[in-house]
Formats: sequence, structure tokens, C-alpha cells
Amino acid sequence: MKFCPDCGAPVRYKIPAGDHCLRHVCTACEAIHYSNPKLVVGCVAEWEGRILLCRRAIEPRLGYWTMPAGFMENGETTRQGAARETLEESQAAVEVLGLVALISIPHINQVHLTYGGRMLQAEHGPTLESSEVRLFDEADIPWDELAFRTVQHSLRYYLEDRRSGCPQPHFLDLNP
Amino acid sequence: MKFCPDCGAPVRYKIPAGDHCLRHVCTACEAIHYSNPKLVVGCVAEWEGRILLCRRAIEPRLGYWTMPAGFMENGETTRQGAARETLEESQAAVEVLGLVALISIPHINQVHLTYGGRMLQAEHGPTLESSEVRLFDEADIPWDELAFRTVQHSLRYYLEDRRSGCPQPHFLDLNP
Repeated sequence: MKFCPDCGAPVRYKIPAGDHCLRHVCTACEAIHYSNPKLVVGCVAEWEGRILLCRRAIEPRLGYWTMPAGFMENGETTRQGAARETLEESQAAVEVLGLVALISIPHINQVHLTYGGRMLQAEHGPTLESSEVRLFDEADIPWDELAFRTVQHSLRYYLEDRRSGCPQPHFLDLNP
Repeated sequence: MKFCPDCGAPVRYKIPAGDHCLRHVCTACEAIHYSNPKLVVGCVAEWEGRILLCRRAIEPRLGYWTMPAGFMENGETTRQGAARETLEESQAAVEVLGLVALISIPHINQVHLTYGGRMLQAEHGPTLESSEVRLFDEADIPWDELAFRTVQHSLRYYLEDRRSGCPQPHFLDLNP
């Protein structure tokens, strides 16, 4: 940030009075502009025991596999966000179930919430963000071609809990 | 947002190509500026069975009681944020324990994460944000003077789980 979104004047990076962090502060109107972590919401969705994965059509990690996930939008709940991302990235309509993972990634200012999900019908397919969308038997999951560590951990948690019959939330902090 | 934080030119509120939401888009450099929900992290902390609450010294809800909680900062995990907010608002050092509640509040674009906590020593006291900080026996909790519904729900979940001996995460969506 170089300019004040409110008045267009230059901002300075400084610690405001009574604060303890550097913030962008307007040199004209003195507005303080905060930057906070973003939430990424996603879904490990099943159809007849198989897991829905998307091959990324966009950077980063173009060509690698992920569960549907993306930035939560204003005006929605975390579960609504997970369902929306799943529909947008895979054309699959899902019922969002319990929380699988809450993962903090402080070095990129993100918190990821991954839910379990049940596809409401078999329909799925490629989208602007996914060059290929497929249902995988557990044995066929492309572990060496997953896009992100969050995908790997979320899938592992989900599958372990499915085997044990005890779905539960898992908590993890990821470092660089 | 009226001006582009990158170049200072006016922004327009429109749906970018390939998107489905209104965004602030710069009329000069065409940068798209996203706005996303914020995370609020907090802690229901105990000392010798009593619960730590803060009387708010700031608006909104000045004079009402809350557990320590505030906006998560960049560069920290959700638990680190909960511990930091507790120290800042109540002078209490805590070990952050399990997740008590994940609450979506879509009409104000917030997601609240409340954790349980164990105070590491008895020390606590007023701060810039809290005119009074007190430990409450369960029977003395000022239910009619709580600042927000998130406080009420988080305390209720925490105390119910303490009674049952089964601490677990609770999930809730709040509407206006």
C-alpha cells in the first residue's frame, strides 16, 4: 500500500499511538489501514467413496492436484464458502459436513479451514480454475502431485478418520 | 475504498472479467482490490476454576463484559493471536488450549475463533482496552452484561463442556 484508499494521499508505514504494530497510516487524513490474515475455505468431498480432486489450471502450482478451496468472501459463512468454492472449481454441488482441519500458515498470513463434504449428485467437471476434475479411489490419490501441504494434510486427516470411523477436527500450524 | 492503494488513482466498483463479485478495480493500473472476512481470536481463560473477563473500556459496547478477543494479526497463528489478545486486554499470560467455538457472522464479515486457556499465573489487571479485569466464579458471571452474542455462546459452550468433562469444538453461524 502506497496511497490512502480513503483520500488518495500517500501513506506512511509507522506504529500508530497506542498500537504495537507497523500500519499504513495516511499522511493527510490519518486513517489507519489494517492488513489481516485471510481465510481459505475448502472441501474434501466424496461420491460413492471416491474423493473429488481438481487439477489446477492456474498458478501457483499449475498442473498439480488439490481439493476445491479458495478465499472466503464477505457475506458468507465458512461452510457456504466451502460449498461455493467446490461448485466454482469442480462443478460439484455438495453438502458441507464437519470440519476436518484448521491450519494456520503465519508466514503467508492465511488460515485454512477444510470441511468434509458429500456430493449431492455425480456431476462434476473442468472449470476456469481446474483443467481436470476427477473422483479418486483412495489407492489412486496422486500424493506426489498434490499442490500444497494443506491438501496433503487435509486428505490424510480425512482418510484416517474415515478408516477409524471417528471424524473430528484437526489443528495444525505450518512453518516455511 | 475510493482510491487505488497501489497508484492513487480513483477506483471503480465493478465485476472483473472472470469474476462473479463486485470488486474495487483501479481505473488507471487496473489492479483488483479484494475485501475478505476478518478473523477474531479470543480465549476463555481459567485460574483456579474462575473465568477471566474484561470490562470494555472502548466502543462498541463500552462498559460490558467480554472474554479477551480481537483481530488476528499477520504473522501469527490463531493460538498465538488468542494469547496475544489475552495479554494485551487483561495482562494475563495464558497457555492456549483447545478450540471452543468457530462462529461465522456473515453480516459483519467476521469469523470468531474462541479457545480455552489456562492462566500461567494469577496476575491480571486493567489495560487500555479494559477498565476492569476480574476472575468470576461460574455463578457470578454477569450474563446480562455481556458485550456480544459471541461471548455468551463461547462461555456457555465452555462451561457446559467443563461440566460434562468433554471439551470439544462447537460450530455456529450467527444472523443479524
